[in-house]
Amino acid sequence: MEHKMDIPGLQSFLVEAFPQVAGEIEVTDLAEDGLTVRLAVQDKHLRPGGTVSGPTMFMLADVAVYLAILSRIGPVALAVTTNCSIDFMRKPAAGADLYCIARMHKLGRVLAVGDAMIYSAGQEAPVARATLTYAIPPK
Amino acid sequence: MEHKMDIPGLQSFLVEAFPQVAGEIEVTDLAEDGLTVRLAVQDKHLRPGGTVSGPTMFMLADVAVYLAILSRIGPVALAVTTNCSIDFMRKPAAGADLYCIARMHKLGRVLAVGDAMIYSAGQEAPVARATLTYAIPPK
Amino acid sequence: MEHKMDIPGLQSFLVEAFPQVAGEIEVTDLAEDGLTVRLAVQDKHLRPGGTVSGPTMFMLADVAVYLAILSRIGPVALAVTTNCSIDFMRKPAAGADLYCIARMHKLGRVLAVGDAMIYSAGQEAPVARATLTYAIPPK
Amino acid sequence: MEHKMDIPGLQSFLVEAFPQVAGEIEVTDLAEDGLTVRLAVQDKHLRPGGTVSGPTMFMLADVAVYLAILSRIGPVALAVTTNCSIDFMRKPAAGADLYCIARMHKLGRVLAVGDAMIYSAGQEAPVARATLTYAIPPK
Repeated sequence: MEHKMDIPGLQSFLVEAFPQVAGEIEVTDLAEDGLTVRLAVQDKHLRPGGTVSGPTMFMLADVAVYLAILSRIGPVALAVTTNCSIDFMRKPAAGADLYCIARMHKLGRVLAVGDAMIYSAGQEAPVARATLTYAIPPK
Repeated sequence: MEHKMDIPGLQSFLVEAFPQVAGEIEVTDLAEDGLTVRLAVQDKHLRPGGTVSGPTMFMLADVAVYLAILSRIGPVALAVTTNCSIDFMRKPAAGADLYCIARMHKLGRVLAVGDAMIYSAGQEAPVARATLTYAIPPK
Repeated sequence: MEHKMDIPGLQSFLVEAFPQVAGEIEVTDLAEDGLTVRLAVQDKHLRPGGTVSGPTMFMLADVAVYLAILSRIGPVALAVTTNCSIDFMRKPAAGADLYCIARMHKLGRVLAVGDAMIYSAGQEAPVARATLTYAIPPK
Repeated sequence: MEHKMDIPGLQSFLVEAFPQVAGEIEVTDLAEDGLTVRLAVQDKHLRPGGTVSGPTMFMLADVAVYLAILSRIGPVALAVTTNCSIDFMRKPAAGADLYCIARMHKLGRVLAVGDAMIYSAGQEAPVARATLTYAIPPK
């Protein structure tokens, strides 16, 4: 399937739609069935003890799958997240950035479904996984 | 079932364990099967357009159910969130605080499960609901 | 909100749409925000050891929330289940029927969201809980 | 990681632990990080209209991930399903068998987490996906 947005386009979209996180998230790869983003982990993402907080991982998965959808349908749509199921499986390494690989499973007329696998840089096993559903507004 | 922590105890725990959010979240009610918290919504919780962000609602549900567990088992445990399934059902009202009612469904030896219903102050229908699972570390 | 189907109407619908389970499931209560069904547990619902199987509890939650939606929108719609998150919390008692209380949280133009709590007859604590989302087809 | 059960061992386990479904499910591939099973779709799996029912797909995902766990830890454990989040994305083709690819994401001391992708034979896009969590009993 053709992409309607490339990496610079997605990055510009982030600045407008998610200004709070645009500076922390970089799209590092855009593939046929999804994309990869990196979160530059900062103090505000951490919980006491140095591990990345759950809401930060939720945000990362949500942004990654959202961008994967937009790369296909373009920046016009106001897709909204309707459901997320997230599993926290291992503690992220302190001081390491997070990578998130988003893959689309369905891009329907009204619903889009995608997966996100989150990795701590330098660790092979995933720290979290999530599946997200978005409602696509009618044209 | 008896409570092992009261509202002031839970509030003090928040300051230590979740310093980033302790100033924004207030436990407003502690009941037999759960508790209610209020999030004082601030600019940092909002997305462009004025609606409360998804990660903020995730954080609110997570903190509320976590506190509901601790009210039963006391502050000693290092429970970790293992799963969250969250449904975003309506747009929160701009400029309104959020309330979250957490209810425990299971408090087992290794797993605890609870629900969270999130409401926008002044709106009857819930804006989101979540179910969260926590792993309770062995004593 | 007004009901568009009563208990006999829902029961007749079951016979047509879910003939495999219609004889086992009885709508025992229809309330303002949901309904209750009972599953007459039979051998085919059991796993070795006598406990009710997971797929049976999934089916029960799905049918209960589906009927709760139809009680509001009538039998015309071909709503399809799009997501289910289910937590199995306790072992159902052997030889006991199951009760399922379905409650609607959202009945939107394109999506409906509801909860199901499943109880083993004679046991106070729930054996399972589920949240289900349905896509409502356009008229 | 080493396997503790091979395909014939898994198939024998099915006969003992899931006699109702053992005749319908065949393990067709055992790989490093998971396995593939095929469901021989029969009338009892169908809903009116000829599509495979939701409970059938739930059962298939549950059995597949369960077997993937057992292939690693051996048949001794009485792992129980604690959570399943399942997305139904497309209608399965009438008259086609289902394939389910299970992949393990975590095999911890107390919890195991795996994914299942379900395909209708002859269709490229998945019909459903699920993530399941199991509690592993202490030795």
